[in-house]
Order: sequence, then structure tokens, then C-alpha cells
Amino acid sequence: MSPYHVDGFMFAGINSGIKKNGQLDIGLIVAEKSIPCAGVFTTNQVVAAPVIQSKKRLAERAMARAIIVNSGNANACTGESGAADAQTMAGHVAKHLNCESRDIQVCSTGVIGAPLPMNTLLDGIDKAMDTLDQASFFDFAEAIRTTDTFTKARRAEITIDGRTYCIVGASKGAGMIHPDMATMLGFVITDAPISESDIDALWRRTCQKTFNAITIDGDTSTNDTALFMASGAAGGAPLVGDHLARFEDTLLNLTSELSKDIVRDAEGGTKLVEIAVSGGLSFNDVQTVANTIALSPLVKTAIHGEDPNWGRIIAAAGRSGVKMDPDQLTLSFDDIELFSAGEWRGLEAEKRVHSIMLRNEYTIRLDLAQGDQSHSIYTCDLSADYIRINADYRS
Amino acid sequence: MSPYHVDGFMFAGINSGIKKNGQLDIGLIVAEKSIPCAGVFTTNQVVAAPVIQSKKRLAERAMARAIIVNSGNANACTGESGAADAQTMAGHVAKHLNCESRDIQVCSTGVIGAPLPMNTLLDGIDKAMDTLDQASFFDFAEAIRTTDTFTKARRAEITIDGRTYCIVGASKGAGMIHPDMATMLGFVITDAPISESDIDALWRRTCQKTFNAITIDGDTSTNDTALFMASGAAGGAPLVGDHLARFEDTLLNLTSELSKDIVRDAEGGTKLVEIAVSGGLSFNDVQTVANTIALSPLVKTAIHGEDPNWGRIIAAAGRSGVKMDPDQLTLSFDDIELFSAGEWRGLEAEKRVHSIMLRNEYTIRLDLAQGDQSHSIYTCDLSADYIRINADYRS
Repeated sequence: MSPYHVDGFMFAGINSGIKKNGQLDIGLIVAEKSIPCAGVFTTNQVVAAPVIQSKKRLAERAMARAIIVNSGNANACTGESGAADAQTMAGHVAKHLNCESRDIQVCSTGVIGAPLPMNTLLDGIDKAMDTLDQASFFDFAEAIRTTDTFTKARRAEITIDGRTYCIVGASKGAGMIHPDMATMLGFVITDAPISESDIDALWRRTCQKTFNAITIDGDTSTNDTALFMASGAAGGAPLVGDHLARFEDTLLNLTSELSKDIVRDAEGGTKLVEIAVSGGLSFNDVQTVANTIALSPLVKTAIHGEDPNWGRIIAAAGRSGVKMDPDQLTLSFDDIELFSAGEWRGLEAEKRVHSIMLRNEYTIRLDLAQGDQSHSIYTCDLSADYIRINADYRS
Repeated sequence: MSPYHVDGFMFAGINSGIKKNGQLDIGLIVAEKSIPCAGVFTTNQVVAAPVIQSKKRLAERAMARAIIVNSGNANACTGESGAADAQTMAGHVAKHLNCESRDIQVCSTGVIGAPLPMNTLLDGIDKAMDTLDQASFFDFAEAIRTTDTFTKARRAEITIDGRTYCIVGASKGAGMIHPDMATMLGFVITDAPISESDIDALWRRTCQKTFNAITIDGDTSTNDTALFMASGAAGGAPLVGDHLARFEDTLLNLTSELSKDIVRDAEGGTKLVEIAVSGGLSFNDVQTVANTIALSPLVKTAIHGEDPNWGRIIAAAGRSGVKMDPDQLTLSFDDIELFSAGEWRGLEAEKRVHSIMLRNEYTIRLDLAQGDQSHSIYTCDLSADYIRINADYRS
């Protein structure tokens, strides 16, 4: 049995010919029936046609039967014909499954501005339908890749009240796609029973701390989508209370690893760094400070150079717009304090921090000493390779 | 006579020994008496001691007698002793001029976290006082440099009602200073008569379109300061109405060039690109959109690669948080439209845009087609040299 088997789901991943090099480019997840489904989508004002359509359908009801994804073409900035193409994709899958179009979630990723090659795509959907089985989740994960250097798939289990539930997920990041931008997709499915009324809030909480807490370069794509489906095929009544909370912890861990996999695969990136901001008066404050530090080119180049350049971190926090008192801040790398009570902790501390920065993964902690809110963002370094990959693509 | 002569002012630029390599490190501007003065300062919450002091004094009254600047040490993140040192600097200059401490504006730029070498500095102020004359403005401009590759000084003239007024300015940018961050300083002086009651608003309007409309990498330093002084030594009554407006135009042009000089000298930068956003409902909207495009690493790498990658620009605008309709946007490079009415304008347009992007300076225009507000930000490209300069400094 495939390690990614989940009761109640079948999968496919095939090459349709959208990608000319023969790599997989159509992925399909199909449930036995329409089941609870939640989605979190890009907040970009310029939104690809499939995102507009999928978002609207989940807003009407938190249910879906299948997810169809193509890579190699984002169907973004394609005007009215793009919207029609997204509808045609959903309709074609629905016809195969003998269900309604609104039960199909559609995602596209790849080149923007180019029309979808619809004949190729529809033939590919037919082919994917023919190969559907319970063993092909890894093929699905491979089919959603664009410039990713590795396939991102994860599995977790949790036993609640004597019953074992399985959660499986795939993600793709966060490279730039010729000729355009970062595009993140994430798909998580479970055989646990989650009610239609709980699934949306559960998924939003999870994404806030995972897919929405990572940054490569701050650019949000037109196509970012994270979907979660629960088949309930493992049996039992819908999870509530403590049981739902325990399930949520496991879901959070798995989704967190899937989102960190995206940062681990960042273009030109060599480090995965957690920016953990604590002691804030509001969630918005700690999120803003963490984001500003995580996006600062000066901080990201210092991380790349393994340089304990604390002034850049303090200055990035200071320009975030959040009120703070420099004399109250404490800055640490893992458990080594480098700046506190308004002053540098000296050369010995800096040497110890430098040795932490030689690692591939570590945490930069900033305590604002104002309140009890905290938040972490995962970021990567900024390297000359990032520039080369993104500047020299066409030249 | 020095081309930078301005009636009513004397200047000095000397080496005190703060910079060990003998480069000029103390700059001084002295007026004959206390005159109208305005300042715009960093909005960073982590603020260097001289900024706190200078800002407070101008908030009390918009007048000053002299500006003392040292480079090589930013007197930032230096706690209580840093605040005392900034006061001592002002007091020492005031004693020489036989005026009050509050009449002295103090600026520092350079390494952060290190205490000022006060003996060296005070001896340097004595030496600067000894060399004051009307011919040394360029030495002043040189003394405020840190990692700048050229000295930034500009001069303009305007004749109003038969009287010729002169405006002279100097700026320094926008490299990162070991071990820390970008630090921008700007100083503009004139012999025109500007009243104490007009000077602050005039200077704020000017800075909004110039020193506050440039970006290298989005990092705001602890020390950013722009000061403007008006001696009135060229005679005449304080400028008002149309006369003041004409003066403001000239001031704006000169300050704009000084601020663009900073971007022209950006670390690793090879292009000066104006991001001109028009058709917004509010100033805040167009400023936010322009800033988001100007800071996007994907846009900046595309500029570096001379790649007409319009999707990155549209996507950056879309994630700015400002409401917009993609189908209403028009994107042009200089006068060539590349995207409008929701669609790409084709390969021929893209080729013409590519040839524009080979230039060192050009404009990217985005029309939101919503209202009548517009704003421009000047930005540079992001190159592998930027990474090298900022990541490898200590290694």
C-alpha cells in the first residue's frame, strides 16, 4: 500500500503535454462523494481565473468532490477567456464524476498571461481520470511542481479514542515561474470526520500559522491556494472539543512541515530561519514586526553571510510601524542573547551567535516586552543565486 | 569664488581621526545668526541619540544657527551615554559660536552600537571651527560620506522679482555602513528669505516628493535626517504666494536630483527607475502601490536582468493592499504600453520595452484609472553585487 494512502480518496498525476519536457503536469484528487472542504486563497487583487472560481464556490458551501490542478500555465491575466477556461475545466471533471461543476476545485500554476492549451488539457484530464487509484498521491504531488527542486509530500497519523486518523499533504513553492512570480499551492486531505461547519475555521487557523507564515521574497502570487478536504472515511462522528483540538495539533504540525519545505526549497536559499516575535500587545503587532524582519534584504543578506549583524534586525523591527521601546527589546539567536536593555551583549555573545548562524536552521527571537502575543514567520536567506535565477532567466 | 557659495553661510569639512584612513569625517555649516530651519527625520522607532535631540529642538522652534555632522560613527543604540554625547557635541559648537545649545543641529552617521570617541570628536570640532570659510561646501559634502562612491553636491539659482536666490545642497546615501544599515542624510541651504512660519511645511512638502520618495532596499535607518536652512542674506522680504511657489519648484528640482544621486550610487545598483503610479483615489493609495512595486525583489531583479516581466509588476501592485481592477490597469515603460484592459499588448510591444530597459534611467508607469492622485518613487535594481556587498562584509 502507498505510504500516502488515505481512505476515501483516489489520486492521479500524469503528463498531458502542457509541459513539453514530459514532466507530470496534471494532478487530480477525487473523493468518493462530496465532502467538507476549506480553502485559503491569495489576497492579491490581481487574481487568476481558477482562484476566483474556486473561492466563490467554497464561499457558497464548504464542500467539494475533487481537486484538479495543472502546472505549466497559471491561467492568470488571461481576461474573459481565462474565466471560461476555468469553468470548462471544472465542467469536464464534473462530467466524468457525474456531479455538479460547483463540486470541483480548480487550481493552475505556471506561466502567466498565456492562454491555457484547452485541447491538450482536456485530453489530459481524460487520461488522469483513467489512471485514478488510491496509490498515486506522490504522482499528484509531483504533478503540481513547477521550479521546485524536490517533491513535497508528508504524512501524519493520530489516534483519538481508539481510532487512527491519517493526514496527508503536498505543497509546491515558491520559486518564480517563467516568466513570472512565486506561486504557492498546498493540499491536505484526511480520512477524519470534520464537519462542514468546523472545517473552514479549522483550516484558516492552520494556514495562519503555516502557509501564511512563510516568506521567500514577499511577493504574493496571483494563484496561491491552500485546500483541505476531510473524507470521514476512517469512521466515527465528526470531531469536536478536545478531540478536534488534538486533531488540529497534528494537522498544524504536518502543514507546518509542508510550508517549511517550501522555504527549504527557496530559489537560491540555503537557510531556514524562524523569526519568533513575542511580547506584543496584539497579534497584528507581532505579525508586522516578524514580517518586516523576515523580508528585510539587509537581514536576509546578513543571514546568508552568517554575520551576527544585530543592528539590521533591531532597525528592521523599528521601521515596522509598531511602537516599541528600544531599551526594552531583547534579541536572541536560539538561546543566546545578543542585545538587551538597549545595549549589545558583547563580543563573546556575538561569537556564540556566529556559530549558531553556521547551521542550516535556527531561530531569531525578538521579545518586545509589552504584552503576551507572539508569532513566528519562516524565512530564508537572500543569495547571489536568487538574483541570478530571477534576473538572468531570459538573458 | 566657490560654485557652492551661499550668502550668509560658512562651511568646513575636516578629518578628525574618527575615520582612521584620513578621509574627511566632520562637516560643519554655520549661519551668521540664528535663521529659519526645518527638519525631516527617520520614522524608525529605534532612533539615534542625535536625531532625538535635533528633532526635539526643531519642534520647539524652527530656527538654527549651525549643523554639525560626523561620519564614521552613528551614535545609535548607545543608550544614555549616547544621548549625553549628542548634547556635548551641540554644547561644544554652541560655545565656539557664543550661542545657545538649542541652536545647534547634530547629525551622526556610520557604525552603530559603538560609543563616539569624544576626545577625538571635540578636538575635530575645534579644528573645523578654525577652517570655517565660505568656500568649503564641497568639503562639507565630502565629510558626510560613508560608503558613497561619489560626493553629492548640487547648486541651483532662481531669479524672483529681479533678485537672484541661490540654493545649494548635499546628500549622502544609501549604502550599508559596517556593521549596519542604510543611512541617508540631506542638507539644503539658501540665501532666500523664508519665514520661520513657512519653512517647516515647505520642507515637508519637498521631502515627501524627494528624500522620502526613494528606495534602495526598504530599510530605514536609525539616523535618516534632512535639514533645510534659509539665511535670507540675499535680501528682500520673506517669500510668499507665487514667489514662494516658484522658489519651491526650484527647491524641489534640486532636492529631487540630490535624492536621485543617492539611488544612482546604490550599492550594486546599475539603474535609476522611476515608478510613476497615477489614477489613484488617494495619495496614500498611489504611494502604497508605488512603494510595493519599487521594493519587490522580483521587480528589482527583472529590472537588473532588463527583462520586460510585466506579470511581476502587476502582481506586486495587486498585493499592495490597494483595491484595484486588473482589467482597468494600464502599464507602460516610458511611452510604450505593455499591458492594458486586462491583457498583454503582444511581442512587438515587449521588444520595444526591452530596448527601453537597456537604458540606465527610465520610467515604469502604472495607471489605476480610479481617480486623479499620482506619485513617483525612484528605485534601483537588485544585483548579485548588492548581495556580495551586504552578505560578505565580515566574512
